Amino acid sequence: MSWPYSPHSRYDAGHMKIAVYGLGRFGTFWADLIQALGEIHGYNRSPKQLSEGIRPIQVPDLRQMDAVFLCSAISSMPQVCEQIAPYLRPGSIVFDTCSVKVFPSRIMAERLPQGVRIIPLHPMFGPDSANREGHRLPLVLCPDPRSDDNQAGYLDQWEQRFASLGMDVVRMSPEEHDQEAARTQGVTHFVGRLLSGLELRPSPIGTLGYRKIFEVMEQTCHDPWQLFLDLQRFNPYTAPVRQDLERSFRHLMEELSTLTDETGG
Amino acid sequence: MSWPYSPHSRYDAGHMKIAVYGLGRFGTFWADLIQALGEIHGYNRSPKQLSEGIRPIQVPDLRQMDAVFLCSAISSMPQVCEQIAPYLRPGSIVFDTCSVKVFPSRIMAERLPQGVRIIPLHPMFGPDSANREGHRLPLVLCPDPRSDDNQAGYLDQWEQRFASLGMDVVRMSPEEHDQEAARTQGVTHFVGRLLSGLELRPSPIGTLGYRKIFEVMEQTCHDPWQLFLDLQRFNPYTAPVRQDLERSFRHLMEELSTLTDETGG
Repeated sequence: MSWPYSPHSRYDAGHMKIAVYGLGRFGTFWADLIQALGEIHGYNRSPKQLSEGIRPIQVPDLRQMDAVFLCSAISSMPQVCEQIAPYLRPGSIVFDTCSVKVFPSRIMAERLPQGVRIIPLHPMFGPDSANREGHRLPLVLCPDPRSDDNQAGYLDQWEQRFASLGMDVVRMSPEEHDQEAARTQGVTHFVGRLLSGLELRPSPIGTLGYRKIFEVMEQTCHDPWQLFLDLQRFNPYTAPVRQDLERSFRHLMEELSTLTDETGG
Repeated sequence: MSWPYSPHSRYDAGHMKIAVYGLGRFGTFWADLIQALGEIHGYNRSPKQLSEGIRPIQVPDLRQMDAVFLCSAISSMPQVCEQIAPYLRPGSIVFDTCSVKVFPSRIMAERLPQGVRIIPLHPMFGPDSANREGHRLPLVLCPDPRSDDNQAGYLDQWEQRFASLGMDVVRMSPEEHDQEAARTQGVTHFVGRLLSGLELRPSPIGTLGYRKIFEVMEQTCHDPWQLFLDLQRFNPYTAPVRQDLERSFRHLMEELSTLTDETGG
């Protein structure tokens, strides 16, 4: 495992040029988070006010980048890959940061030029959860879908770079990720959206458990509705989870429907 | 507000005799928690190993008690009140600790002898949540349902005693409590039971939100199934919440059913 320079050194920061494509809520957060890894450049379709230290670029400027992080919507991946493909330098690395992994891995493998390296990535945290004291920052990293030997050198290097930022790197295949995410992140967002239909409010008599589900509702509903839909339809393993939720919900409602009201005076 | 002695003083602990009726999971926890308030006695239908400092009694011994906490199932309240009524000393105070308040308030008012004071109580915490660092211990205290002037003297005294144990006392009517609890505790238990039908497990890539809903599932499912049912059927305000859950669930499922699978190769 070779790791020639610290990500915090001037040498590294001066020499690695990194682009963040898509400066929505997550992309803006991500660009700030990785500043120690190099010289950070930001691209957004519509012009945006950038954080200090982030330099604005246009798509053709991707030619000069060593690494590109794609932070756009899951559903935009095919178009985004088409758009950037002509401007990627051989040997540069493209990461997606989608909340599903099978779909973007396949799209990148199909549409990005040979010679570009691909690392599908999923940071399992965001602006709302990253600042919680004591909270781990799990990050899933998948092998290059076009490389049999997984070119372990650069995977290892990037794993160490993410670890140096306090992230907890878990390496798995896109299929393993999507199976696991369907039963974890997918269910969490479903619960948050279910609760958002109830007009809940903070309560002076809220139990610890109530405060937890209330926070989950607030956090998941900060994300765009589009992300909620995309987490379901772009993950091939969510259908059986929806069936389980349906069955469990039905079961509870049936149990409760047989109860007689016992409170009458 | 008169508060002549500290609950931690020998005088108080020696002179106030307190019974806990029902030593299930919650009763055992409660008896330990209030030890500083007096000499604690415990009654359970079937004989039980008692914690250190708790003295076993039989129902007729309630005659000697200054205060009795009922820690039995909501549905048992009518039978329990019938059983203890002949043995309660005039001037003594009976607390229930049910997770609903309208029903037990009415039952106690109907079935306990005049001269006995009633304070409906709901500790909004239990063995699982009480030990979490930094967690408030909210406790709802309702006025005596048979006393117009609410005999503020002893309500205030008990409020201070609970506060001295680190509890956060909220005074409200049984109706206010049940309305609020239907949308907080009731919903929390529903979510916990919904998730328990999914065979979830801890995950190396679990987000912060996932860990929260997983904890809620574990915590609510430690409580008996009977409590889950009773929270619904003995609270007159849960029916509209179930309707809201049903509507919200339907809405989500409909939104998701129109999605086409976008992951095909």
